[in-house]
Amino acid sequence: MAKEIERKFLVDHQRWSAMVKPAGQNFRQGYLLTDPEKTIRVRTTSTKGYLTIKGKNVGATRTEFEYEIPHEEATALLNDFSSTELSKIRYEIEHSNKLWEVDVFLGHNEGLVVAEIELISEEESFEIPEWIDKEVTHDQRYYNSNLTLAPFNTWNWESE
Amino acid sequence: MAKEIERKFLVDHQRWSAMVKPAGQNFRQGYLLTDPEKTIRVRTTSTKGYLTIKGKNVGATRTEFEYEIPHEEATALLNDFSSTELSKIRYEIEHSNKLWEVDVFLGHNEGLVVAEIELISEEESFEIPEWIDKEVTHDQRYYNSNLTLAPFNTWNWESE
Repeated sequence: MAKEIERKFLVDHQRWSAMVKPAGQNFRQGYLLTDPEKTIRVRTTSTKGYLTIKGKNVGATRTEFEYEIPHEEATALLNDFSSTELSKIRYEIEHSNKLWEVDVFLGHNEGLVVAEIELISEEESFEIPEWIDKEVTHDQRYYNSNLTLAPFNTWNWESE
Repeated sequence: MAKEIERKFLVDHQRWSAMVKPAGQNFRQGYLLTDPEKTIRVRTTSTKGYLTIKGKNVGATRTEFEYEIPHEEATALLNDFSSTELSKIRYEIEHSNKLWEVDVFLGHNEGLVVAEIELISEEESFEIPEWIDKEVTHDQRYYNSNLTLAPFNTWNWESE
């Protein structure tokens, strides 16, 4: 059980493309449950599996319970128990002694690149890399659980 | 991941009361999700915690994924993430080389005593102890997930 304090930003595609990056990791993830109070996520990397329960966001903070489970069981849960899923490539980028996780989404969310930084407190200050665009921490459309239900490529930009 | 093949019976209260029994174990359990396709259960015993995902029953069989988790986290999940719960005392009784799990329900399900036997195949034969009453394997009211939503003491027996 942990308190997860996270801020989320869009990534400037041009600057991101121009960067030298470490190798990314392929994530496949789906949800056994998505509701406003809690989500239950299953994720696989190429070799590992995870089951993660997250509570409701309060500001940039939420409770998280994460358990590593066998890859084969996580795959079975994704195949048989999850109705929607997404995939993305995750890059871990260090910047000014902080770790940024940059997700390059695939499939129906292709075109979306999002960076997250985990903080010790909501007030913690940090340096913003030059490849960061606007903050979307409080925009629920960017919740991964919502991106499985209403993928980026289905958004209606005319209403913006 | 396992296939769980289980048959469920009511227990004859008088014969059960007259038996010499081993010590029982207190179970507290609640559900993060109950729907016809799957349930996600959190259970605590006095020292352990479990997170269990079960698929839909097909006959007496269903898929089960069970993970032991820290007792403290299971308790937090029960307190904060589960809207309904039940408690019961479980007794393990050996009879003719088979293990019977007998659940004596508490709280709003008090008065209900149910015995379950786990089988290797749906066709496996086994000896029925004399303290067993009628079979309720296929009666969904006796699913533990349903007993948290519609406890035994709220059942309307007039319609039987």
